[in-house]
Amino acid sequence: MKTDFKHSTTLRVRYGETDQMGYSYYGNYAQYFEVGRVEALRELGMSYKSLEDRGIMLPVAHMEVNYKAPALYDDALQITTHISELKGARLFFHYEIHVNEKLISTASTTLVFVAKETMRPISPPEDFIKLFDNYLKRAND
Amino acid sequence: MKTDFKHSTTLRVRYGETDQMGYSYYGNYAQYFEVGRVEALRELGMSYKSLEDRGIMLPVAHMEVNYKAPALYDDALQITTHISELKGARLFFHYEIHVNEKLISTASTTLVFVAKETMRPISPPEDFIKLFDNYLKRAND
Amino acid sequence: MKTDFKHSTTLRVRYGETDQMGYSYYGNYAQYFEVGRVEALRELGMSYKSLEDRGIMLPVAHMEVNYKAPALYDDALQITTHISELKGARLFFHYEIHVNEKLISTASTTLVFVAKETMRPISPPEDFIKLFDNYLKRAND
Amino acid sequence: MKTDFKHSTTLRVRYGETDQMGYSYYGNYAQYFEVGRVEALRELGMSYKSLEDRGIMLPVAHMEVNYKAPALYDDALQITTHISELKGARLFFHYEIHVNEKLISTASTTLVFVAKETMRPISPPEDFIKLFDNYLKRAND
Repeated sequence: MKTDFKHSTTLRVRYGETDQMGYSYYGNYAQYFEVGRVEALRELGMSYKSLEDRGIMLPVAHMEVNYKAPALYDDALQITTHISELKGARLFFHYEIHVNEKLISTASTTLVFVAKETMRPISPPEDFIKLFDNYLKRAND
Repeated sequence: MKTDFKHSTTLRVRYGETDQMGYSYYGNYAQYFEVGRVEALRELGMSYKSLEDRGIMLPVAHMEVNYKAPALYDDALQITTHISELKGARLFFHYEIHVNEKLISTASTTLVFVAKETMRPISPPEDFIKLFDNYLKRAND
Repeated sequence: MKTDFKHSTTLRVRYGETDQMGYSYYGNYAQYFEVGRVEALRELGMSYKSLEDRGIMLPVAHMEVNYKAPALYDDALQITTHISELKGARLFFHYEIHVNEKLISTASTTLVFVAKETMRPISPPEDFIKLFDNYLKRAND
Repeated sequence: MKTDFKHSTTLRVRYGETDQMGYSYYGNYAQYFEVGRVEALRELGMSYKSLEDRGIMLPVAHMEVNYKAPALYDDALQITTHISELKGARLFFHYEIHVNEKLISTASTTLVFVAKETMRPISPPEDFIKLFDNYLKRAND
């Protein structure tokens, strides 16, 4: 099932995140996307914390990032997260980061629903699937 | 120019790198690849530090990571870095991480030679290009 | 000069900040205090970014942290920063972190005004000193 | 019981650890001390990993750090860890970091043996105590 669900959140680049080029280190973006993702899920109605409390984990299986322009110290990052698709145990996200309306990064990640006990992929919980119903992408999109 | 140059280095997963799943957080891998890359360049004969001292930077423009199995606390990561191609201002790397002979991650990054002053792409320095000569990939590979 | 200046800011513990104990890793607190400090200075009227733009740096010379109770994933940290004293080139901060009204950490740091060019301690800029005037601690405090 | 046990390990400053001052960010030192501590315990004969496997955790209760001179990118940090004292559930460590023979940081941490299940302080395991016997500090030291 494909969805239109998008959510935006803002985050400031911390001093400790800069490197000696004066850029936010490229490795930090994974955290930025994680914050975007968690806030998007919270907005959708699902707390990632409560998911783990129920014995379900969502590790990242794949990540792709394009770095178009640097993020600098104290920049306010506008992170837009699009939960694009749920397919079996896999959940697909797309991200855009803007600073002052300028697009500085695009990215995508694939996460997998995994049972904590067996470490094996599982179907997402029913209540999670239901949350998507309002955001289903129409066939003619 | 395509090259065969490969280098391996070993790194232990630090406690501070684990997350509450007990995995090394997916965002840490960017640092692992950076260490692999820097050590590969050092082995090739180039110090990244001296490159920056000459006003040349190598920011990451693109990264793609596959997470196949988790890395756990105290695991000895064997990081193999393949400097695969130099094409204009762009330098391509491929990575594999093994733990006890098991492949847990593959990845690739594209870096760009940039002049510190202008922040614009530039040709790599001559001495850097020469270092590749011994590792050129044969046409019939 | 001693001051009463205090400022509070809130920050959520990121997933990537947890370790396999399920705690926010003890090394992250330095970033939390940095965020508290930067926001406190911003509230006071000084941007740390603009300070660096004028060639002045504020490295940390000393840090002491008490960890009283763990911070967990998704906890909302209330960070209270007290800019306690300016003494020559040194600036003293005290911090408290609360989660749901419970005190989980206290800390202090000493920062030093340093000229970027010479890397030597310098007097803080006049405009910075003036910002403190409204918050001077009375003798009988 | 006070001990003389000291151990040294070497670590390179990673690019991602630098900040825009060109220093290793002050928050990274907690990781450096952790690496020093884990390697010191391993040398003593105890794996921190196996300790956790037995349901025992060692969270940090207190840390104090003096930053005397910056650590720069690619610097080889020589971290000397002194396990100075075991007192009830508390274990005391002292650290020195040298770069090219120059002392750049001193620090101390207090860790507490905690049962994973109850999250309460406990006595250290017998085999751990025995490891210290060879390193007991003489009264006239």
